[in-house]
Amino acid sequence: MNCLKRNLSAVRYRLAMILSICLTMNQSVMAQSENGTSLLPTLEDLIPGGSSYRFTQSLYGLQWWGDRCIKPETDSLFVVEPEKGKESLLFTRDAVNRALKAAQAPEVGNLEHALFPWPEKTQALFALTGMYAVYDWNAEEARVIRRFDKKAANTDCEPQRMNVAYTIGNNLYVNGRQVTDEPEGVVCGQPVHRNEFGICKGTFWSPKGNFLAFYRMDESMVAQYPLVDITARTGKTDLVRYPMAGMTSHEVTVGIYSPDTEKTVFLDTGDPTDRYFTNIAWAPDEKSLFLIEVNRDQNHARLCRYDVRTGKQTGVLYEETHEKYVEPQQPIRFLPWDESKFVCQSQRDGWNHLYLMDVDRPGEHTRLTRGEWVVQSIVGFDEKRKEIIITASKESPLQTNVYKVRVRDGRLTRLDNGEGVHTPSLSASGTYLTDRWSGPETPCKIGITATANGRQTSELFSAPDPFEGLVMPTVETGTLKAADGKTDLYWRMLKPRDFDPKKKYPVIVYVYGGPHAQMIVANHMYAARGWDLYMANKGYILFTLDNRGSQNRGLEFENCTFRHLGVEECKDQVCGVEFLKSLPYVDSKRIGVHGWSFGGHMTVALMLRYPEVFKAGVAGGPVIDWKYYEVMYGERYMDTPRQNPEGYRQCDLKQAAANLKGHLLIIHDDHDDTCVPQHTLSFIKACVDARTYPDLFIYPGHKHNVMGRDRVHLHEKITRYFEDYLK
Amino acid sequence: MNCLKRNLSAVRYRLAMILSICLTMNQSVMAQSENGTSLLPTLEDLIPGGSSYRFTQSLYGLQWWGDRCIKPETDSLFVVEPEKGKESLLFTRDAVNRALKAAQAPEVGNLEHALFPWPEKTQALFALTGMYAVYDWNAEEARVIRRFDKKAANTDCEPQRMNVAYTIGNNLYVNGRQVTDEPEGVVCGQPVHRNEFGICKGTFWSPKGNFLAFYRMDESMVAQYPLVDITARTGKTDLVRYPMAGMTSHEVTVGIYSPDTEKTVFLDTGDPTDRYFTNIAWAPDEKSLFLIEVNRDQNHARLCRYDVRTGKQTGVLYEETHEKYVEPQQPIRFLPWDESKFVCQSQRDGWNHLYLMDVDRPGEHTRLTRGEWVVQSIVGFDEKRKEIIITASKESPLQTNVYKVRVRDGRLTRLDNGEGVHTPSLSASGTYLTDRWSGPETPCKIGITATANGRQTSELFSAPDPFEGLVMPTVETGTLKAADGKTDLYWRMLKPRDFDPKKKYPVIVYVYGGPHAQMIVANHMYAARGWDLYMANKGYILFTLDNRGSQNRGLEFENCTFRHLGVEECKDQVCGVEFLKSLPYVDSKRIGVHGWSFGGHMTVALMLRYPEVFKAGVAGGPVIDWKYYEVMYGERYMDTPRQNPEGYRQCDLKQAAANLKGHLLIIHDDHDDTCVPQHTLSFIKACVDARTYPDLFIYPGHKHNVMGRDRVHLHEKITRYFEDYLK
Repeated sequence: MNCLKRNLSAVRYRLAMILSICLTMNQSVMAQSENGTSLLPTLEDLIPGGSSYRFTQSLYGLQWWGDRCIKPETDSLFVVEPEKGKESLLFTRDAVNRALKAAQAPEVGNLEHALFPWPEKTQALFALTGMYAVYDWNAEEARVIRRFDKKAANTDCEPQRMNVAYTIGNNLYVNGRQVTDEPEGVVCGQPVHRNEFGICKGTFWSPKGNFLAFYRMDESMVAQYPLVDITARTGKTDLVRYPMAGMTSHEVTVGIYSPDTEKTVFLDTGDPTDRYFTNIAWAPDEKSLFLIEVNRDQNHARLCRYDVRTGKQTGVLYEETHEKYVEPQQPIRFLPWDESKFVCQSQRDGWNHLYLMDVDRPGEHTRLTRGEWVVQSIVGFDEKRKEIIITASKESPLQTNVYKVRVRDGRLTRLDNGEGVHTPSLSASGTYLTDRWSGPETPCKIGITATANGRQTSELFSAPDPFEGLVMPTVETGTLKAADGKTDLYWRMLKPRDFDPKKKYPVIVYVYGGPHAQMIVANHMYAARGWDLYMANKGYILFTLDNRGSQNRGLEFENCTFRHLGVEECKDQVCGVEFLKSLPYVDSKRIGVHGWSFGGHMTVALMLRYPEVFKAGVAGGPVIDWKYYEVMYGERYMDTPRQNPEGYRQCDLKQAAANLKGHLLIIHDDHDDTCVPQHTLSFIKACVDARTYPDLFIYPGHKHNVMGRDRVHLHEKITRYFEDYLK
Repeated sequence: MNCLKRNLSAVRYRLAMILSICLTMNQSVMAQSENGTSLLPTLEDLIPGGSSYRFTQSLYGLQWWGDRCIKPETDSLFVVEPEKGKESLLFTRDAVNRALKAAQAPEVGNLEHALFPWPEKTQALFALTGMYAVYDWNAEEARVIRRFDKKAANTDCEPQRMNVAYTIGNNLYVNGRQVTDEPEGVVCGQPVHRNEFGICKGTFWSPKGNFLAFYRMDESMVAQYPLVDITARTGKTDLVRYPMAGMTSHEVTVGIYSPDTEKTVFLDTGDPTDRYFTNIAWAPDEKSLFLIEVNRDQNHARLCRYDVRTGKQTGVLYEETHEKYVEPQQPIRFLPWDESKFVCQSQRDGWNHLYLMDVDRPGEHTRLTRGEWVVQSIVGFDEKRKEIIITASKESPLQTNVYKVRVRDGRLTRLDNGEGVHTPSLSASGTYLTDRWSGPETPCKIGITATANGRQTSELFSAPDPFEGLVMPTVETGTLKAADGKTDLYWRMLKPRDFDPKKKYPVIVYVYGGPHAQMIVANHMYAARGWDLYMANKGYILFTLDNRGSQNRGLEFENCTFRHLGVEECKDQVCGVEFLKSLPYVDSKRIGVHGWSFGGHMTVALMLRYPEVFKAGVAGGPVIDWKYYEVMYGERYMDTPRQNPEGYRQCDLKQAAANLKGHLLIIHDDHDDTCVPQHTLSFIKACVDARTYPDLFIYPGHKHNVMGRDRVHLHEKITRYFEDYLK
């Protein structure tokens, strides 16, 4: 990593990011005490934000200091020798705070946020409010090495020269100097294109820290959506520049700033109208910047090289087109041992794989991986052995395992136990990795693995069962055929602990169903959600199916939904219901459905398209009409309303408002700037016009999901609805 | 009437105006066919806006042409000789339309909007889009006499010289000429002070038509409340200048425009900050204009005279103060036979009565009426006999009857049958009146009465039972003691037609409870509402009580709520519940409550303050926190938040959000500019914080109540809630 990023600004929740909530919620365990003292968990136990939330312990802050592993605790910090696992105390919080105090810096509340960017130094880096401080544990001294404005957001520092970039309001600053001076409506140094195309930040330090590439987004021409803040003395409007499908979108340019000269060169990309500038990557020599440029139709991507000094384009290295859409989400990565070669990820053969390319041979590429599975991430490189460490779904579409790929011949070697979901982190030289993983019956285990041969050199941690002593439902998984009659779809089913196959149970289908997401993965309890566990304990069967259109199953699986988003997905979900109805213990008259965001869309769509199937539903933050959704995500799958009027009409749930028969509660947050409240309110109006009777609830002050303490209220609200109308 | 007003702009619904809905809804009848063919009425039958709404027939457009009565129908128009009731055809719609067509004017769809302002002419006046046309039925000719902009709103013409005043946007126009040229934020020619103090228009023609007095309101300093229009392509904000209690309010001035000179003189009232200019009245000689000026505290009113030519104040004729509040709602009226004398209405002795005053004797007055009843309106004058025709509640607080008051000695003579609720209209000379009335068992009857002796000279109309053949509940009324132990309160109870005293019935209390309103009056079925009838048919007992604080019972009855609005009112409602519980056929475990606006406040307040009493409630457009309500109405009863912090806290329902136990549905309209959505949404937030669980529904596009076709949806929604949680 060539930069340390600490995003202090509020995270923009994206459709797909909702999943992170689900995944967080899944850190629960199946184990329970079978004696009479078992307790039913409450929502406070099971929902993040709950006062007694049972999170799965992990080693927060675990990281590499060169090839040595750093294992922080709140008050003490240890260094672990990877080969033998020997732990030694490096320093205590007391010592750090004494030194910080002497340096007139604020104290730290724990050591889990300490950073170790310098393998050659006995120094830890602390990001504090408005400053960076360094603590030298040999000298027992601290020093403030960079101060900046306390209002700074999107802070991004690089450890070579300790340059700090950040934003105040809509402008970019570096090391206390204002880099841009733009009026309202132009945003610099922040993520653009509404965080699509893998974009999650707006500043990109060059490898040696001499330049900062940054995004500049002119959105002054974009319509503003009003969100009303009812906590003001007189309600006031928070305006969000929100380009809706088919409408005028923002224009993005990329600047390169030099802290030495204090000058900015903007890339000469030509007219930025209706273009996406994605996946910024630096050449190792800092002479070139690489972008993947995508047209508004999103069916043509070009990997372009720009001269850092002049901003001129110096080549197009690779192009990809697709009749539906292309979706580059990963920047290119240069080989550490050969600065002329880089690795590019592409779904060109229908599965995300690695291709080796040469900056001097535009248009040529060498395949590195192949097969009906997807590369999920590049973890890093083993420079000595000339190998790439990756994660991939090769063992099973539900799994994420660690592999190394030999660049010479593409030889693939698995580096982990072949189970579950792994999130590895590589040491500086690539010799070791921390292997943090979870499996259906494993809350969390962490060890250190030698990348030479996949041997686990030491065990660091095994999380205790967070639900020890609580009654937990059982979890089953399996597959069934999709509506196309051939594709296998994975399902997950939760049954009450005291399940009796002679009884008839009501079922709640929890659904997401959209792209960029997978509900059933082989981590702890197969990613069963806290609320799902709660409801199973209450006597419901909870069922989830990853329909076509979801993640990790290849391009064709995902893009069969093109131009009629939600339709195939619903058909598959109904296949799931048919399966449920075939089970003797399922009460087919009491089937409910619940989902949020894309899953909210699915919930409403299923209630309207299959009114005889679903008795009750709860939809959160639903997309109702794709023309009210934003340009980048919406047009990728739906094209524009002008290009695809039939598709937009077919997928506009207002058109089917008259079909509503069952009980449908729609929940929306009044500050939802991802899926604006217009969706739900326009659907309510359509139902009033059609004389149908949905229910509605609004959470004031929340964005695209209800987070924090109120998340417990939300799930109690959802629970009551099903208890009223499904039980 | 010296002016003809046709307000083309959307009516601003006021808290109290909600009642007009209730009253409209009451035009139903108790009669039913007792044979087996009786049908249960549907909401479409009972709710205004319903496709088969059973409205009570009346003679729409009935009016006076001098001392002859005009009785229009859709296609023919008759003149009625008042003494003998003889009807003759005056003209047909065909004849009018032929003439209009010849005059190149648009045709009319009915004759019910024809006007007859000229007793001496054989001419009818038609207000058409962008023009006034006159039809002479002798000549069978039509003529356009005034054209103006088709975008004109608030059109106000006077028949002497046929001057037409109107507004376009925020500016005032007269006869095609622009009178004011104000920027956004300054409104001319429209009602001010949010329609309080009896203000319902913004232009006032002088008696002879030589001058136009008009309101100018500078509200540029008032905070804007954002209402979001979700029907726009990208949701957009409709901003409403809404001064909330304690905050900066608008500033009003009064201009006088002369169409002859095209000049405007503004009254020199001094600094308009925190002052109310109400009840504009012209002197008969057009030399003076009278205003009743009220301070922001609303405890001091002054009747001021201004010189029309100079705008200077020329006298203060009367002052009134009260430790709680004064509330002048009626302009002074000059005696037609003595231009130096006028009649003023005042509650100074605790009941609204008439006082005779002399422009030359400031501070002096002669009482004209007295007693523990209220004058409800001045209908007009009998110039010959020097009598004032009024309506008053003398027979019963539930009734409105017609009287004449002899100015010489205050002798009071009733002119009607002493029953029910009468809405008279006086002929030009005051010799006759049309007496339209309704009684508990009388949907609507209309006759002509001679004011000399109260003799009915002719019967014009008796409405058929609009609910003929439908099953109708029974209606009972009575009194009980208020929470003060001494005041009689009136109640109304509806029982199912098949009521069985041995059964236990659930009860729904329908409540309004605020000032300016009375739910139980002696018109048809004692003003039972359509939805109440519907629910009684479904097996509920519907109960309504006019608590202290409501209208027509005198000042002390109304102002006992001062500085703690809603508290005494709730206590009285609970007295009603105690009475209900004493009835053997009431199921005291199934008591619900429903109300809108002030009644919405009452509903929420009752649910929170008496959580053990009410099992379910539906509140519409509720006031939740008086500090979010507007200055004029709010501060009259509550003073400012700074003056009365304890009262505001006591009446802020958010403070009691944790008390919610029963099922409470709150309904709000997203374009409610009377009681802004901040009330309901802030309450929802308070409940989320307090972990209580109200339900919510929003009607997009509606203002302070759901009107038109959607009103049926609203009442089905309310019905379902009680069916789910109270039955």
